[in-house]
Amino acid sequence: MNNDTDVPQQLEHLKGIKVLDMSQFEAGPSCTEVLAWLGAEVVKLENPKGGDPARRSFKGPGTDDSWYFLLLNANKKSLSIDVKSVAGLEIVKELAKRADVFIENFAPGVIERLGLGYEALREINPRLIYAQVKGYGRGSPNEHMLAFDMIAQATGGLMSITGTADGPPMRLGITLGDTGAGMLIAISLLAALFRRVQTGHGEHLDIAMQDAMLHYLRAGFSAQALRGGPALRVGNKMVSGSNPPCGIYRCKPFGPNDYVCLYTSHNNPDHWRRVLMVIGRTDLIGDPRYDTQQARAQHEPGVDALVTTWSQQHDKWEAERQLSAAGLPCGAIRDTDELLNDPDFEARAVMQVMQHPVKGPFKMPVWPVLHDGKAAAVGPAPLLGEHSEQVLREWLAMSAGQLKDLKDKGVIA
Amino acid sequence: MNNDTDVPQQLEHLKGIKVLDMSQFEAGPSCTEVLAWLGAEVVKLENPKGGDPARRSFKGPGTDDSWYFLLLNANKKSLSIDVKSVAGLEIVKELAKRADVFIENFAPGVIERLGLGYEALREINPRLIYAQVKGYGRGSPNEHMLAFDMIAQATGGLMSITGTADGPPMRLGITLGDTGAGMLIAISLLAALFRRVQTGHGEHLDIAMQDAMLHYLRAGFSAQALRGGPALRVGNKMVSGSNPPCGIYRCKPFGPNDYVCLYTSHNNPDHWRRVLMVIGRTDLIGDPRYDTQQARAQHEPGVDALVTTWSQQHDKWEAERQLSAAGLPCGAIRDTDELLNDPDFEARAVMQVMQHPVKGPFKMPVWPVLHDGKAAAVGPAPLLGEHSEQVLREWLAMSAGQLKDLKDKGVIA
Repeated sequence: MNNDTDVPQQLEHLKGIKVLDMSQFEAGPSCTEVLAWLGAEVVKLENPKGGDPARRSFKGPGTDDSWYFLLLNANKKSLSIDVKSVAGLEIVKELAKRADVFIENFAPGVIERLGLGYEALREINPRLIYAQVKGYGRGSPNEHMLAFDMIAQATGGLMSITGTADGPPMRLGITLGDTGAGMLIAISLLAALFRRVQTGHGEHLDIAMQDAMLHYLRAGFSAQALRGGPALRVGNKMVSGSNPPCGIYRCKPFGPNDYVCLYTSHNNPDHWRRVLMVIGRTDLIGDPRYDTQQARAQHEPGVDALVTTWSQQHDKWEAERQLSAAGLPCGAIRDTDELLNDPDFEARAVMQVMQHPVKGPFKMPVWPVLHDGKAAAVGPAPLLGEHSEQVLREWLAMSAGQLKDLKDKGVIA
Repeated sequence: MNNDTDVPQQLEHLKGIKVLDMSQFEAGPSCTEVLAWLGAEVVKLENPKGGDPARRSFKGPGTDDSWYFLLLNANKKSLSIDVKSVAGLEIVKELAKRADVFIENFAPGVIERLGLGYEALREINPRLIYAQVKGYGRGSPNEHMLAFDMIAQATGGLMSITGTADGPPMRLGITLGDTGAGMLIAISLLAALFRRVQTGHGEHLDIAMQDAMLHYLRAGFSAQALRGGPALRVGNKMVSGSNPPCGIYRCKPFGPNDYVCLYTSHNNPDHWRRVLMVIGRTDLIGDPRYDTQQARAQHEPGVDALVTTWSQQHDKWEAERQLSAAGLPCGAIRDTDELLNDPDFEARAVMQVMQHPVKGPFKMPVWPVLHDGKAAAVGPAPLLGEHSEQVLREWLAMSAGQLKDLKDKGVIA
């Protein structure tokens, strides 16, 4: 931050919007976390026996919540309630009457069997925006198949175009099957909220993770149209066709992430001349083997060797400095450690420290869009049931006696 | 489609919203295409000398627009105008007075030098939502560096966790550096439109592609927190830790995408027993080498070998059938050709055929969220300048004489 007035504050774009969140793991929670960054009141409805399974996913021993859970549930509330009890179900319906948004991503059919399907909730709240994330589309032959992030990456085509030509299809290290679907339904959800201002009507939103992947796969469909056949894996080149040099080039001290990425644009023929200046091979300016995109594409291994001969003499930061000083699109590969410890992100508040009552301070990325120059402020991910009483008091005006009774009966925890 | 009434119709969520779109390539256009899917009037402002460079990117010979351009510009309008002329700039400002949204993703400083920076446009239209996509954050040490999709993937950490442990960092085949940033700013843009209903105020939105990548990298930050060091590349395993079997398994006839993906959940210990049933190794049920997640993690190559011995006897579709019939999360790897020719997507209207006046029919994925069961309808990507006269007539009430004059002077085309 430049000064004290820049301390991030809660964005208030969705102030007053109540979100009833029955989603779990990542696809749904990534969506509702965005709503929370933007100021909505997001209440996770969790079963009292452990809650969102993401609390226990990808973690070490112990009963504390996972880092993974913290990353996906900042600024939310938690109401732990047994929705399989008659009283619990009744309470959830009362909450749904007062909610603006309901979202779930259970396996196919689960929410309907709970008695909380779209038809049921629309009847009691016609203004409700009801969002569902499933693995496959309603009416598709795979409708009843289960999906997790990796499965969506496989069946949605992403893996088929990631990796090297001589290797197998490759998973993206990131969880785009989940968060990628979550971001798209967040968009439609906000559009539905905007429309509701005029119409007063709620809406049913529905996304399949496999379908969502097609949206991200468009460069692949461009390559498919050009080839008239499946887009291929091309390693660190461009699936739709590269303009050499294009890719990553090894640097000192030759660790696993010691590479600089260099991209030269189809639309700027001067980029090649600039590369030759930086790598000290001005003797090759005008050489017909390399002078046009077509020529360089024919001699791509040679082009890459020229760049590598130079890059290996520098570390990646120095390589980035020299290439960028020449006006070339480039960048050192960053690993998570380098990103986490780069003071730039904290200075601009796109990374902030979550103060968690059990886990302690945890530095993490926040919503990366600045609104009038301001980042959203991070608040803690909720402990299981942390807000059970608060939410029931505030949403349903329950008395202390009623709350005690529900606790005693094990309906809430 | 099941019947005629299901023919996709233009969604009208953003009906009446005017978007002035000076963005190019993919990060900006992927955002404005979403706005167009949702019913906004998106007008691309393009220079008369070729327009959006994406029209010429990733294409064969000829002067027609690229498939890549078609994929990213469905349902938009094109106004080709020389913004460097005095008259052209004046017209753009008149349009900006009437616009709800303005968006650009030029290299740093370009839009301000054109006289169309945020301060200038806010002054003439305080209700304007002004969105910018850059490579790096304002105020970051890299602020002036150029970025393209691949660079954002490198400097935003995605490549460091994609690929195999013994190989180099790997580019995602998809263009998430671009579309990933575009989706996030679309979310903030819709939130700003929603807020404006109450406040009447416009807003400045700002996203850096590098920052956007951190949002998608959260599984990597989870792994970083667990390890206390950089998240590693783990091939087709999970960056945050897998529950074996987890990954892709080779199938007949052993082509480049003949694999089935299998994921067993941390949260369902029965998955392993089901795997043993499917692969015909019920003799191993209860075998201590494999019976717990910890044991399987210690014997992961052995676990994978067991699954592969089975998968190699089947094609990927049969493998998918058998595993999913047993209630296991799984899926055959699909390539772009298989996806494009799978009738399921067209039947559900998540793929539709764009009728383009020059390129002819082109089947492509559309916005994957269904609104009340309906998909957005695809319309053609605009030819360069196709709507110049229409937009100036409708937005600025220009006469035929004025339009002819502007054309004669080369201000519009």
